[in-house]
Amino acid sequence: MTLKILTLFPEMFTNFFNTSIIKRALDKDLFKVEVIDLRQYSHDKHHHVDDTPYGGGKGMVIKVDIVKEAIDANKSKNTKILLTSPRGYKYNQQKAMALAKEEEILIICGHYEGFDERVLNYVDEEISIGDYVLTGGELAAMVISDSIIRLQKGVLAEGSYEDDSFQTGLLEYPQYTRPQVFDGVEVPKVLQNGNHSEIRKYRLYESLKLTYLRRPDLLENYNLTKEEKEMLEKIKKEALQNK
Amino acid sequence: MTLKILTLFPEMFTNFFNTSIIKRALDKDLFKVEVIDLRQYSHDKHHHVDDTPYGGGKGMVIKVDIVKEAIDANKSKNTKILLTSPRGYKYNQQKAMALAKEEEILIICGHYEGFDERVLNYVDEEISIGDYVLTGGELAAMVISDSIIRLQKGVLAEGSYEDDSFQTGLLEYPQYTRPQVFDGVEVPKVLQNGNHSEIRKYRLYESLKLTYLRRPDLLENYNLTKEEKEMLEKIKKEALQNK
Repeated sequence: MTLKILTLFPEMFTNFFNTSIIKRALDKDLFKVEVIDLRQYSHDKHHHVDDTPYGGGKGMVIKVDIVKEAIDANKSKNTKILLTSPRGYKYNQQKAMALAKEEEILIICGHYEGFDERVLNYVDEEISIGDYVLTGGELAAMVISDSIIRLQKGVLAEGSYEDDSFQTGLLEYPQYTRPQVFDGVEVPKVLQNGNHSEIRKYRLYESLKLTYLRRPDLLENYNLTKEEKEMLEKIKKEALQNK
Repeated sequence: MTLKILTLFPEMFTNFFNTSIIKRALDKDLFKVEVIDLRQYSHDKHHHVDDTPYGGGKGMVIKVDIVKEAIDANKSKNTKILLTSPRGYKYNQQKAMALAKEEEILIICGHYEGFDERVLNYVDEEISIGDYVLTGGELAAMVISDSIIRLQKGVLAEGSYEDDSFQTGLLEYPQYTRPQVFDGVEVPKVLQNGNHSEIRKYRLYESLKLTYLRRPDLLENYNLTKEEKEMLEKIKKEALQNK
């Protein structure tokens, strides 16, 4: 996969692509990346990319002609073009999994000033990473890139994301490591006894419970197995008793 | 406000705090930041911070004793302690506005391997920036920091975020700038004629329409004015006709 990022702040991406798992994946050639400075497509002598809004108002608006030229110069036949924006459709793990299969993705970083609306005529999808506002779309582009890169074959160890929150449809169960007792709190006995069937049940139960208590909305689209249905009944009863 | 970030990858934050609006705010002393390396609280000679999980499974788990020591060494009386995690409560603009009023915030960057569950005993809130999984919590910490910093007094020009998506409760209206016609598409006439009352109505209508079509969930908690109610009726009728 090739990731292209169109931004006014290319220097913001240096650390991101140079640290930890992402750097290792780049070094192993598991994906390619190009960070492109939008400003190079401005033709006035001050390299302006924005102008005042029609109809008045605070702030500036990024010009459609410049963005269109930048897109044309960097897209190929199979490029999926994304724009980061708080107005976009909500990003989630299902979307990450779908995008992870694309050949080439161009992410245009939304700017806190906003784009000329006509930019959307040249974009496949407007994506929001959450219901909050950022100074620019660079962090959103990194979030999208990171979530896609970690799903590329060879980036993480085989099987290491199968129990991730959202990957299974449930929030992840609690994990414990040494010390066995810390500050008076002991690791649950079931995790200490090595009975794998009990451990599996405990983890599934805790996953379901956390999801039910914190994010019941995730259960709406989740197909419960018979075992999970029984567990959920028990969880609901317990929750009622604790009220 | 002071922002403290506890992470295994302090170098990931250099660009973030050195670019654009965030750097200007730092230079103007509008907030303070400390990026703290979690590894310095490890006492074994290899500076390990994680260990294998009780009960088995892929991946490693960050140790509670190390995190507790790091928290104790860096918190003061009024520190709000956050942990980034896909299992956390959903972050949004309301949360950003509340956190922006805190005196000191310590963000512990969740790691893709997960923390010992007992870490939560020392944390005020577990926060998720969205329903997707990242290689680490560093990007989430940047997202939270960015959304909070831009709300600090003096960071953005007065009045410049009042029309933001989510700040008003609605998605933002479309913006246009020159050229007046591009690729055959003209800027809406109403924005060209300078009638401020009509422009205000147009923008409100478009905000409502976009929110209704894309994020009807946002309207559930929104108190409509009489004018907005009438607009929404019209929008609904139009949507039905276009079906």
